[in-house]
Amino acid sequence: MQNVIDFIKANRGRYENELIEFLKIPSVSAQSARKSDCLRAARFLESQFQSMGFDVSLRPTGGNPVVLARWHHAPGKPTVLIYGHYDVQPEDPIDEWNSPPFDPQIRDGNLYARGATDDKGQSFAHVKAVEALLAETGALPLNVTFLIEGEEEIHSANLPHFIHENKEELAADFGVVSDSSQYGPGVPAITYALRGIVGEEIRVDGPDRDLHSGVFGGAVQNPCNALARIIASFHDGEGRVAIPGFYDDVLDLEAWEREAFAALPSDEEDLKKSLGVPELAGEPGYTPLERRWARPTLDVNGLFGGYQGEGSKTIIPAWAGAKITMRLVPNQDPATIHRLFEEHLRRVTPPSVKVTLKKGGGGNGPVLVPRDARFMKEAVRALELGFGAKPVFVREGGSIPIVLNFSQELGIDVLLIGFGLPDDNLHSPNEKFNLADFNRAIQTSAWLLHLCGE
Amino acid sequence: MQNVIDFIKANRGRYENELIEFLKIPSVSAQSARKSDCLRAARFLESQFQSMGFDVSLRPTGGNPVVLARWHHAPGKPTVLIYGHYDVQPEDPIDEWNSPPFDPQIRDGNLYARGATDDKGQSFAHVKAVEALLAETGALPLNVTFLIEGEEEIHSANLPHFIHENKEELAADFGVVSDSSQYGPGVPAITYALRGIVGEEIRVDGPDRDLHSGVFGGAVQNPCNALARIIASFHDGEGRVAIPGFYDDVLDLEAWEREAFAALPSDEEDLKKSLGVPELAGEPGYTPLERRWARPTLDVNGLFGGYQGEGSKTIIPAWAGAKITMRLVPNQDPATIHRLFEEHLRRVTPPSVKVTLKKGGGGNGPVLVPRDARFMKEAVRALELGFGAKPVFVREGGSIPIVLNFSQELGIDVLLIGFGLPDDNLHSPNEKFNLADFNRAIQTSAWLLHLCGE
Repeated sequence: MQNVIDFIKANRGRYENELIEFLKIPSVSAQSARKSDCLRAARFLESQFQSMGFDVSLRPTGGNPVVLARWHHAPGKPTVLIYGHYDVQPEDPIDEWNSPPFDPQIRDGNLYARGATDDKGQSFAHVKAVEALLAETGALPLNVTFLIEGEEEIHSANLPHFIHENKEELAADFGVVSDSSQYGPGVPAITYALRGIVGEEIRVDGPDRDLHSGVFGGAVQNPCNALARIIASFHDGEGRVAIPGFYDDVLDLEAWEREAFAALPSDEEDLKKSLGVPELAGEPGYTPLERRWARPTLDVNGLFGGYQGEGSKTIIPAWAGAKITMRLVPNQDPATIHRLFEEHLRRVTPPSVKVTLKKGGGGNGPVLVPRDARFMKEAVRALELGFGAKPVFVREGGSIPIVLNFSQELGIDVLLIGFGLPDDNLHSPNEKFNLADFNRAIQTSAWLLHLCGE
Repeated sequence: MQNVIDFIKANRGRYENELIEFLKIPSVSAQSARKSDCLRAARFLESQFQSMGFDVSLRPTGGNPVVLARWHHAPGKPTVLIYGHYDVQPEDPIDEWNSPPFDPQIRDGNLYARGATDDKGQSFAHVKAVEALLAETGALPLNVTFLIEGEEEIHSANLPHFIHENKEELAADFGVVSDSSQYGPGVPAITYALRGIVGEEIRVDGPDRDLHSGVFGGAVQNPCNALARIIASFHDGEGRVAIPGFYDDVLDLEAWEREAFAALPSDEEDLKKSLGVPELAGEPGYTPLERRWARPTLDVNGLFGGYQGEGSKTIIPAWAGAKITMRLVPNQDPATIHRLFEEHLRRVTPPSVKVTLKKGGGGNGPVLVPRDARFMKEAVRALELGFGAKPVFVREGGSIPIVLNFSQELGIDVLLIGFGLPDDNLHSPNEKFNLADFNRAIQTSAWLLHLCGE
């Protein structure tokens, strides 16, 4: 293995240049105008796998293709399914980027670009690890299947069907997903729980056109005011979600978890400062870490109505809208939460407006990975070897939609090994990936495959 | 006068073509990119007055110029100050126009264009009336000053200063403003009260960048949610404005007013239908007409924050904002209301966000014109002759910022004579002006000048 690790260190510059090429492709899955860019990103990966001798194909779905790449020449050895995604979040607000989101630039040892960490950089680390193993040893220590999709940022709408239809081909002994992060610099982590998500979009319609707010103001419900009132009704005055039944199925944190979280290095002042907020906020009775990892939320992601241009326009707008996501924790069920949301919405809608609920991007359930899952010990050791520090066990506030699906359809546990950092600005302007961590990630992946193949 | 009226009827086609030319100019004062269009609109009027032999000039202000045109060759006769504005509201939402807002088109006897009624069409009627009087009689029956400004839709920010500086030149015995409307088709009206207005713009800042709603959701205040909560706090659950002190100075409607309003033809079902709303709404204890004419309001004119594009973006937005106007009634004071608004805002802002209040377009007070104002009787008679029906006395929910200023600075009462119709879609897509009313308006103006000069 020393040769493999030396190879990975020696090729650091080339790996970075290849990642830069990958990041230049604006594969934003939420925007239909960039469908061809998504295809380009898939093709980029396809040619990577081709040159390594993988059996690779772009597999059609109802949306962007899945890159499926297999190297199954280790009979008697276990099979790993490595998942990643080549699509990225939209880049706006574009003005707030210090360098263009799709023109990757290196500053202070970090690579800045949309998708740098989420998830091009992290998934590419596994690609480069198998490349190094093949280059130095001529083979892989176990059977490897890569499944890299192009719709994670739009809730993987087509992937569950694809997995269901290709169960045999995807059969594996365990899964690996690197779409989370370290706990902090020098504190690698294995994630054992993920929050789920439900997306909603509300539209409030009032008058059939914008009205003069002087002529009609007072006699007509203003859709912006009505929407604000509806949104306000989603929380109580202290920060709890106020939708009746919302917390009914929430699994309480166990005592050991609260203790373990409390033992983690965590500084509320630092968090405040790093986010630039005057105060933290949230549900009473829980620490900020508990709120982010193990408590459900309701956030407005977008709000719109009426005149947004320069100066003023004295109207009662015809309509207003909001995009909303709720983060779910074990054992909340997306369908149940959607129903409760809808029932609440009907209850609080005044008769003077019409409210339409268009289910946004669908939803997916939360995840809990057992601490004794297969190869968990090897993952711990690989991170220790790759990063030079024992990993901690953490939860994660975000969703990786497909993890639940892997366990349900393929019967495997998934090891969630994150290589990014909490301040990598994923989904924000100035997304980045630390390039030293990128190289450590490649080493970690090589160690993991090696240890699991022993 | 019969010759004058015949002339007005005979020239109907030409008047309409000239108005169409005027309406083609997109003189949107709220948008700085259209400053030159505002100047073009002013120049259009200047050349109209030049060709009639008026002493006319474009007078500079801190913003768009004032068109000041005087014909003062009737010694011993009273002087009328006729006010109008050549600027118009922004045209968006542009998609909802059935024909382009600045390419005027005639359908079913109506002329459709931004500014058709507010206020190019209505003020142009007075211009054409003096033209007809001069053409048929060689002189005007009284001294006439036109003051046509270019910033009414942005709250006439520079006009008060202009009036103050040019008091002598603007001296008059009474004012005439046509920037309101008839009560309904065939029911001409004189307006004796106007609501005032105060504009505000709120910005709520949370984290210093958009955050991943999974990673940070629950521990950070969401600016969109916070803004919604703030906006919801502006009203109680029944539709009253809930800002403490907001109603303290409101002059109650007198018994005769409530009776007179109740006697007007008014149909709530028709109003609902014409506005396309499922139900009317508003302050308990008042009829829809009373709410629109004589009760103060608070309306969100624009609402914005986070991701508004296609699909979803799972963020906690860095900030959110709202444009708000409050309509005031006698005797509310704009400065007091602004202060109460600000105090309320400070009280309801949670410590987890920063709220900035940027005073939008300033404000102006409400107006009450005495029923026995000078030349009120002549105005009643002129409308009767021009429209063939006795006018009713009404209030108006909108603001004409400068009317209060005329009475305070020049010591004159202003006759508010509206030629438009309530469904003319002013400030909305598909603004229109009935062309038969346009001609009746020119006749009415000629009659008014004639009667006041007798």
